Amino acid sequence: MTILDIIEKKKTKQELTREEIRFFVNGFTDGSIPDYQMSALLMAILLNGMTDRETFDMTDAMLHSGDVVDMSALGGIVVDKHSTGGIGDSTTLALAPILACCGVYVAKMSGRGLGFTGGTIDKLESIPGFDTALSEEEFFDAVKRVGCAVIGQTANLAPADKKIYALRDVTGTVNSIPLICASIMSKKLASGSDTILLDVKYGSGAFMPDPESALELATKMVTIGTIAGKRIGALITDMQQPLSDHVGNSLEIIGIVDVLKGKKNRLYYEIREVALRLLALTGKYTLATAEAAFDNAIDSGRALNKFAEMVEAQHGDPSYILHPEKFVIGKRDVVVAQSDGYVTHMVAADIGRAVTHLGGGRMTKSDAIDFSVGVIMHVAIGSEVKKGDVLCEVFHNGKGLQEAEELISNAITIGNDKPAEHKIAYAYVGKDGVELY
Amino acid sequence: MTILDIIEKKKTKQELTREEIRFFVNGFTDGSIPDYQMSALLMAILLNGMTDRETFDMTDAMLHSGDVVDMSALGGIVVDKHSTGGIGDSTTLALAPILACCGVYVAKMSGRGLGFTGGTIDKLESIPGFDTALSEEEFFDAVKRVGCAVIGQTANLAPADKKIYALRDVTGTVNSIPLICASIMSKKLASGSDTILLDVKYGSGAFMPDPESALELATKMVTIGTIAGKRIGALITDMQQPLSDHVGNSLEIIGIVDVLKGKKNRLYYEIREVALRLLALTGKYTLATAEAAFDNAIDSGRALNKFAEMVEAQHGDPSYILHPEKFVIGKRDVVVAQSDGYVTHMVAADIGRAVTHLGGGRMTKSDAIDFSVGVIMHVAIGSEVKKGDVLCEVFHNGKGLQEAEELISNAITIGNDKPAEHKIAYAYVGKDGVELY
Repeated sequence: MTILDIIEKKKTKQELTREEIRFFVNGFTDGSIPDYQMSALLMAILLNGMTDRETFDMTDAMLHSGDVVDMSALGGIVVDKHSTGGIGDSTTLALAPILACCGVYVAKMSGRGLGFTGGTIDKLESIPGFDTALSEEEFFDAVKRVGCAVIGQTANLAPADKKIYALRDVTGTVNSIPLICASIMSKKLASGSDTILLDVKYGSGAFMPDPESALELATKMVTIGTIAGKRIGALITDMQQPLSDHVGNSLEIIGIVDVLKGKKNRLYYEIREVALRLLALTGKYTLATAEAAFDNAIDSGRALNKFAEMVEAQHGDPSYILHPEKFVIGKRDVVVAQSDGYVTHMVAADIGRAVTHLGGGRMTKSDAIDFSVGVIMHVAIGSEVKKGDVLCEVFHNGKGLQEAEELISNAITIGNDKPAEHKIAYAYVGKDGVELY
Repeated sequence: MTILDIIEKKKTKQELTREEIRFFVNGFTDGSIPDYQMSALLMAILLNGMTDRETFDMTDAMLHSGDVVDMSALGGIVVDKHSTGGIGDSTTLALAPILACCGVYVAKMSGRGLGFTGGTIDKLESIPGFDTALSEEEFFDAVKRVGCAVIGQTANLAPADKKIYALRDVTGTVNSIPLICASIMSKKLASGSDTILLDVKYGSGAFMPDPESALELATKMVTIGTIAGKRIGALITDMQQPLSDHVGNSLEIIGIVDVLKGKKNRLYYEIREVALRLLALTGKYTLATAEAAFDNAIDSGRALNKFAEMVEAQHGDPSYILHPEKFVIGKRDVVVAQSDGYVTHMVAADIGRAVTHLGGGRMTKSDAIDFSVGVIMHVAIGSEVKKGDVLCEVFHNGKGLQEAEELISNAITIGNDKPAEHKIAYAYVGKDGVELY
């Protein structure tokens, strides 16, 4: 077997065997297959596709390229939620304590952000003292005791994916459904949860441009996860505007505390939808009993306390959760409407970029993040505004203010006609099929 | 403009502009575009194709990556023949003197062979003293004086092609009609002839497997050459068996001398067809007057003398041309028929490989060639044989004899039914269309 034979097969639209797929994944990871051959193969895969069987085998080969986390010692249901990423997506921070209150474990290994705002780990580190680098023992201990913990990825999960993704990124081979699927699922399957809810976003701030392509990716991932023996489902959600009104690092923690206190905004409804689907997936709940458990966790204040408890277990100062006004926030400025009308469109990615300009995100891996900057949106798609109304507050420390405000101003379109309502979710994909909202 | 934008366009089946094509050809040649991006683009080109306009622009960019030879100082018609390569293809050696006798110039820069038998240059170097490395001045002087000369490629012709081809060779991106076309035509257009006859071969010993794909490539090359302002045509010829009965280096010179003396074998008919088409292309001849000129060159003995004259002009010993029995040839052995019947099929490539095993070709660039080894075929497709008849003579110096004879024996299939006649040419492609034989 040679890499040239494998390229030849895929080039001529033949299905690759499990052995051939393992050969190129392992060979590229160990360096015996050079990048110029791998990129030719990746382009052939992008253009000629992969069957579900091939995609599963590629996922499986990538997942076994590194550590596979075993959480069976926890002795309970371990759930995980994976979002394909978006602007103001801090759902994990609320979901972890809420789900722990509902009697399932959340043992989450999360990444740092590159570009736009910081990642979940950066947001948590804006809480003084919070330790995202617990040892494996401390991590499992915190999960067992509190029910949830969130740390940075320590295990060597799917190193093949890291290497393949880096090459895809510079060879125009990112937007292939089977390759995206294998990349996400190899890490998910290696991280040890038994129940997984995928949040596949579409729109201007997301990876997939439209609901149809998001649905295609979601369906493929649910198929692969099901073959791998997981309880798995996927929500297709809208990312045409920031998910949270609060975009930034400390600001998103503040936004999450609002939700845990019961504030019913877009972020709240999305978190609720994800939580209900995830709880129903475990088999311990129906959608109806999950609803009751969710509402009870919030209304009783237990979810907020659980968040504080998690922060404490990870050496952070829980008083910041109970008194979020303690967070140091940058100087306030505002972006105002230039005309009367309705907000018809937002370029969510540009609002993320604005926060990066302020210092709230990374351009390169080594950049430090300013936790105190960000924006609070006062409008969403469909909001009616008058000229001079505040569209959003901008919190800054002087850096990049003008660029940020220009980006935001251009990112928000005001028109005469009230746009159609933007639903939070477009569809749910379970192993038995698709349910449209 | 970035290479990623260009990959994206070709990936989504958009036509690239001239500027985009120049950008990636020049960028890859100067090293600013890395091989892993180029191989992804080449795979996208292979799978999504290129229009004639794109192919011309790629050819043009590659041709201008190095020297462009100017032969206008010769003050006459300069013709060139390019063969896509095959086993026992020594046509250039006869065509050069014949065409010179017909009043056109042949100023040929030829390559060395890698794999199979040696190239044209190796064959000429089997003539004692023959110098294939004349200076540019000596070369032009020889052409002007004798009418023809053949040297190794000295000029820096289309370095972009050399670099791109090396990458295609190891990334499964060789068999793309536009890429093959740009590769061949960039070198042809850079080498300065005004009239070009392409000999595109198909079959087991050639690059293109069947006449249809050879026709597609030929049509594309004639289109590109015509756009470039050349008088150009292409013959589609059969390479399902060795072109010459003599395969080897000194042996092929002996075979060529036979043809120049008027021996009417397959090689003779192919050379005649190429010569007539090329002479007609110049506009100085019709096919009928070309026929008369060709026959006269051979029958008068002028072509043979011209070959000796060319050898002398290039410091070789012309007595070897007039007395080819002077060539030192290896020890003789024979391969005989194992059964009665007709020769129904030959794997021409394996007969080439057999000669390489004997030492007559190169496995790697630095291998030395044994000029004295090779084979003389006694049969062709359609020959009737009895068990024990000699299929071919093998000339060797001990090295690789057993492997070579096994290869040859397996390469010649003997069956019960007389096969259909194998025509020398399948079609001629001129700028106005295709003429089937």
